[in-house]
Amino acid sequence: MRIESVDLFYFALPDIEDRADGSQDSFLVRLRSDSGLEGYGESDSSPLIAIACYCAPMSHSNIVALSQSLLGQTLDGPEDIRRIYNHARRRAMDIAHFSHAWAAADIALWDLLGKATGQPVYRLLGYDRALPKRAYASFVFPDTPEKAAALAAESRRRGFTAVKFGWGPMGHRGLEYDVELVRQARRGLGDDAALMIDAGCVWGEDVGAALARSRAFAPFRPTWLEEPLHTEAVDAYARLRAESPLAIAAGEGCNTLRAAEDLLVNGRLDFLQIDPGRIGGITPAFDALRLAQREGRTFVNHTFKSHLSLAAAMSVMAGEPSAPWVEYCESDSPLVRGLVANPIELDGHGQVRLTDRPGLGVEVNLKAVAQYARAVTMSIDGRIIGASTMPA
Amino acid sequence: MRIESVDLFYFALPDIEDRADGSQDSFLVRLRSDSGLEGYGESDSSPLIAIACYCAPMSHSNIVALSQSLLGQTLDGPEDIRRIYNHARRRAMDIAHFSHAWAAADIALWDLLGKATGQPVYRLLGYDRALPKRAYASFVFPDTPEKAAALAAESRRRGFTAVKFGWGPMGHRGLEYDVELVRQARRGLGDDAALMIDAGCVWGEDVGAALARSRAFAPFRPTWLEEPLHTEAVDAYARLRAESPLAIAAGEGCNTLRAAEDLLVNGRLDFLQIDPGRIGGITPAFDALRLAQREGRTFVNHTFKSHLSLAAAMSVMAGEPSAPWVEYCESDSPLVRGLVANPIELDGHGQVRLTDRPGLGVEVNLKAVAQYARAVTMSIDGRIIGASTMPA
Repeated sequence: MRIESVDLFYFALPDIEDRADGSQDSFLVRLRSDSGLEGYGESDSSPLIAIACYCAPMSHSNIVALSQSLLGQTLDGPEDIRRIYNHARRRAMDIAHFSHAWAAADIALWDLLGKATGQPVYRLLGYDRALPKRAYASFVFPDTPEKAAALAAESRRRGFTAVKFGWGPMGHRGLEYDVELVRQARRGLGDDAALMIDAGCVWGEDVGAALARSRAFAPFRPTWLEEPLHTEAVDAYARLRAESPLAIAAGEGCNTLRAAEDLLVNGRLDFLQIDPGRIGGITPAFDALRLAQREGRTFVNHTFKSHLSLAAAMSVMAGEPSAPWVEYCESDSPLVRGLVANPIELDGHGQVRLTDRPGLGVEVNLKAVAQYARAVTMSIDGRIIGASTMPA
Repeated sequence: MRIESVDLFYFALPDIEDRADGSQDSFLVRLRSDSGLEGYGESDSSPLIAIACYCAPMSHSNIVALSQSLLGQTLDGPEDIRRIYNHARRRAMDIAHFSHAWAAADIALWDLLGKATGQPVYRLLGYDRALPKRAYASFVFPDTPEKAAALAAESRRRGFTAVKFGWGPMGHRGLEYDVELVRQARRGLGDDAALMIDAGCVWGEDVGAALARSRAFAPFRPTWLEEPLHTEAVDAYARLRAESPLAIAAGEGCNTLRAAEDLLVNGRLDFLQIDPGRIGGITPAFDALRLAQREGRTFVNHTFKSHLSLAAAMSVMAGEPSAPWVEYCESDSPLVRGLVANPIELDGHGQVRLTDRPGLGVEVNLKAVAQYARAVTMSIDGRIIGASTMPA
């Protein structure tokens, strides 16, 4: 089949809050083929900047709009997706935003190919079946330790056996407050569940501050301490790892496969957290999974968008036993579950599992989120060069 | 003083050619202060994507438009620029395009501070004086070896003692043709000038193909072989370096300081080529220069934009004797020299040197390029959220 159209969607809540909650908007790509099928993908990107990447006028041979690298392409097998990826990446070599913007297109290509072949994406990636994965409920830290305890307890009641808190007040009110956040999260969660703590890069390159938290948090047995340092602070990560009693997780800020390899190998991570919606889609995320396996580290998804992104991330890891965790966004944004007609639900054991439906296995329901659609137009010298599509 | 306004300009030639010539358009930022002064900076970025970065609606606390990180900021010394840089980078942590877009603002901040203090930017960076630097005329490879010979000879007549050719047919027509390109470039140049060869990432991760060229080009004594491999192919660069008879140069594709460090140290570069217009401005480019010094490698600018970008790049290296080369774009685009009233001219020894004029030392002349200005409008739900400014 051939790619005949590229539609871009921008959804956003009416009031965006100034907090680290990435589920407040969404950038979606819909690809349609000459066979009448369609595939969807979502990026973890500023929607406006992503739209600009799809419609920007050519600056020269290495800055070419992403839509041009999609339209007319032949898509008949996984090798075509790799070929299109390499082509688009080369044509956008000098667009630093390439990976964030392209991610939605790559995911949509996999979805489309799955639908065309009647296969779930994970089977196209070579997995025989989808394994059940342990979901951890992922929250932005509420503004007090007590609220963290309450959220943790509520998550247990809802069937989760693992909870992560991150960002929010963590790191902003001193060591004692940080410890209290962790203590109360553990108290609300109980002793028999897994707790993850995400520091949101708050200590920058300050290994001493991060190490002090790792030691102080250790009695509450977090599965990992996430992003204590800035993504670029690779040498600092290695120094932290050498002393830290807690396992260290990071990687969501890696926008290229090499950045992920650098942080994993030279930064000595225990857990590599990759967002297919940022690193450029399922294609490079799957490469990153293989990289983590090669190095004997654990691959985890980063996902704080809709269940379309969740399905994409789960497809990458679906049949891989060495990737047992799934980040499951528990933001209350209506975009998280509302974007698809069939959200991915927790089973009775705190696990999630992909079905054998073709493509990503989730059904995008544009009408259900139509009220959040934003009509973007970009024009140059009075001529419209790009626009978002509104749900019919 | 305080930053009171942020104006964005988009210039482009009427017909953009599909070749690796980055001088065909320009993204400019003008900052004005409450003291009535103004500073200018240019990015090496798609102008449309950069404009989107300045005006995108907030997605969450880590995706905040760049203009918001500039307006109202206090600017009284170099430490303010570092502070504003760190602030903007943190607020745009999840915008992969940050460095490409921010570069123009950072350069404009240095220009503005120089004008306010009566100092050239290089003095604000700690240099006592600007040293003369050897300029190499930088060309996209013409489509035949004979034309390369003619361009090289003409460059000698114009006073250059060094010439670089890159991209174009290099790597696309087989080893023998590649050698012929280099042979004719050397013939036209003569034996007593320096020749650089830029392969434009054409061999990807293929160390064997790159090594074959290094060996075959060696008799023509290029000062370096540039970007034989893809920027992400760090391990491949290290393997190439171990065998290559030619020095290896790369780095223009590095969008973060860490990526530059990774490629320099782990990829074992001889020459680190940094574009202040891509890595995020003078501030991180100066850090990259210090990094190259620490590692005992040679820092070189990458510049294929206007003389405003050239002045910014030269400021970074101005007083540093270990950075003797300047890439001097010899594209015939009228934007290269036309954007400033006082282009940086070659002296009688093939050298260029910054003056002691305040700021970047070049005077932006918007009227001279007004015919190339593009009027961009971005709107959401019918409301204009961002626009380029047209020269008055």
